[in-house]
Amino acid sequence: MIRDSSHRGPPVDPQTRSAVRAFAPGSIGNLGPGLDILGCAITGPGDAVVARMHDSPGIHLEDPGHPELPRDPEHHASAIAAAEVLRRIGATSVGVSLSIEKGLPLSGGQGGSAASAIAGAFAVNALLGAPLQDHDLLLAALVAEQRVAGRHLDNLAPALLGGIVLVRSIEPLDIVRLSSPAALRFVVVHPDMRLRTADARAVLPPHVDLPTAMAQAGAIAKMVWAFGTGDVERLRGVIDDRIAEPARAPLLPGFAEAKKAAIDAGALGCSIAGGGPSAFAMVNGDHAAGRTLAAMLDAYRAAGMDATGRVARVDERGTRVEPSHPTNTINSA
Amino acid sequence: MIRDSSHRGPPVDPQTRSAVRAFAPGSIGNLGPGLDILGCAITGPGDAVVARMHDSPGIHLEDPGHPELPRDPEHHASAIAAAEVLRRIGATSVGVSLSIEKGLPLSGGQGGSAASAIAGAFAVNALLGAPLQDHDLLLAALVAEQRVAGRHLDNLAPALLGGIVLVRSIEPLDIVRLSSPAALRFVVVHPDMRLRTADARAVLPPHVDLPTAMAQAGAIAKMVWAFGTGDVERLRGVIDDRIAEPARAPLLPGFAEAKKAAIDAGALGCSIAGGGPSAFAMVNGDHAAGRTLAAMLDAYRAAGMDATGRVARVDERGTRVEPSHPTNTINSA
Repeated sequence: MIRDSSHRGPPVDPQTRSAVRAFAPGSIGNLGPGLDILGCAITGPGDAVVARMHDSPGIHLEDPGHPELPRDPEHHASAIAAAEVLRRIGATSVGVSLSIEKGLPLSGGQGGSAASAIAGAFAVNALLGAPLQDHDLLLAALVAEQRVAGRHLDNLAPALLGGIVLVRSIEPLDIVRLSSPAALRFVVVHPDMRLRTADARAVLPPHVDLPTAMAQAGAIAKMVWAFGTGDVERLRGVIDDRIAEPARAPLLPGFAEAKKAAIDAGALGCSIAGGGPSAFAMVNGDHAAGRTLAAMLDAYRAAGMDATGRVARVDERGTRVEPSHPTNTINSA
Repeated sequence: MIRDSSHRGPPVDPQTRSAVRAFAPGSIGNLGPGLDILGCAITGPGDAVVARMHDSPGIHLEDPGHPELPRDPEHHASAIAAAEVLRRIGATSVGVSLSIEKGLPLSGGQGGSAASAIAGAFAVNALLGAPLQDHDLLLAALVAEQRVAGRHLDNLAPALLGGIVLVRSIEPLDIVRLSSPAALRFVVVHPDMRLRTADARAVLPPHVDLPTAMAQAGAIAKMVWAFGTGDVERLRGVIDDRIAEPARAPLLPGFAEAKKAAIDAGALGCSIAGGGPSAFAMVNGDHAAGRTLAAMLDAYRAAGMDATGRVARVDERGTRVEPSHPTNTINSA
């Protein structure tokens, strides 16, 4: 694993802190053909978790972040991950309360559960002086992700590390942070519907034929090569998912039309973000990104689906300690 | 496709030539997990084809290169590919005779059929003033490869272009020549048996489960990333084929023992070359390569299988016009 914690915010002094706010970016999992193994953190909204010391041991959920999210710490991604951090540290007598600021849409396919989980793990770990390394934080957050979304790291790993990440293996943990072409932009469009991760997973085929498996592998491999060259144009036509997208597209009204519109508008490629319903396009530069965004929104609306969207860059920083705004420096005592 | 013909040998003057000798290197197809999509040209023996003008139209097979190879041009890889070159040029009245120098083992898994096919295509094309580009030469040779071995380019493309090549797609043709870490060595061991490509292909599973497909893709993607970084150590443990190797290993007495011996001797990884029976190990540097070669040969012999082997580098040159030796300059009239 490639680690670089220098961007993770100011050091937290265990003697003076009383609260830590950790921010985790949104991410695109299942990046095109990279089902479960390729993901990218993106700039813009994310989830934040404020962790404060609490008098009674265990994890207390002060604010779940959204009226529809569970108030029971046993079922909230941030709290599950935070509890797993306490367990891994062996801090059985420590109490921590969590307040979640939910910036990502629920069941949107933008890595919301992963951002909540890793921000929870990161905040508690930072509050306690950061005894755990990235490896353990990922596995702690995976306990939560597995319970609420599925056992995969393609959102968690980029949300923590930033950038584009290849998850070669979970056991043993083998992840690679790839480089990102500077001109790469993501257009993320969120149609006004929800799709539960579990439902999106249920339609995946249990088996694929050998030519399909190898074509999918070839597309992923070419994407990895293209990322490495830094030449974003080499991604054109390669975002070719033959496994998840054909199975999930029928669940997503307007997606096929939006994808066609994105390609026609000059996007390098377009597919479903995570398990959907959000769609993403990969685009060369800001100008083409704006054009692609407009075309995709129009296409969704013409298909009878209201939609919102935005243009993002690769978030190279990943999860970090970050005060909410300058007048509220919660890291000071 | 990345083209660089500067290494392909001296220009052939159509007015003065009467013969061209093209040499194509051996190659490892199915490079570890890269079934049908990843291959590497290697230094050492290869196949050569001498093409000469002939009075009667069509391809004439003067010497098939081996007593067990067909004398009928309709069934010999070099001749099939050469005929396809004539067809693509539209040279219906041209006659060419071919003599094959077979340096690679028959049914060895070292890309022998691909080397014969591409050398045949290349020699005839060069003899006629090189009207066809790499793209057409590959597709001409693919006609032969498909007839004698199967419709795949993972030997043909590296044999033509040199280096490590990712075959993303045959239709449309999309191949990428990857970079090769300087310290990369191949240990190639040929046990004293044959395995027909068709038999090796018959045992492949028609379907794979989704986790296996994605694990295979992840391994291929990490190999591509490792090649790009130039750091050969990043290949360690990644040459992990979950599809072809488990199906084919039972056909190959001694392979499991040789693979274990290779890993124990410090190899980065080990798998079956092409469809077998040859095995290959990828190794960091000459010293480890020598140790790995000795260990693999010992293991085969201990398992009751005689074997020969060698250490090779990546052949960066690919197919080229090359006189057999200085005193026999067959390119002059």
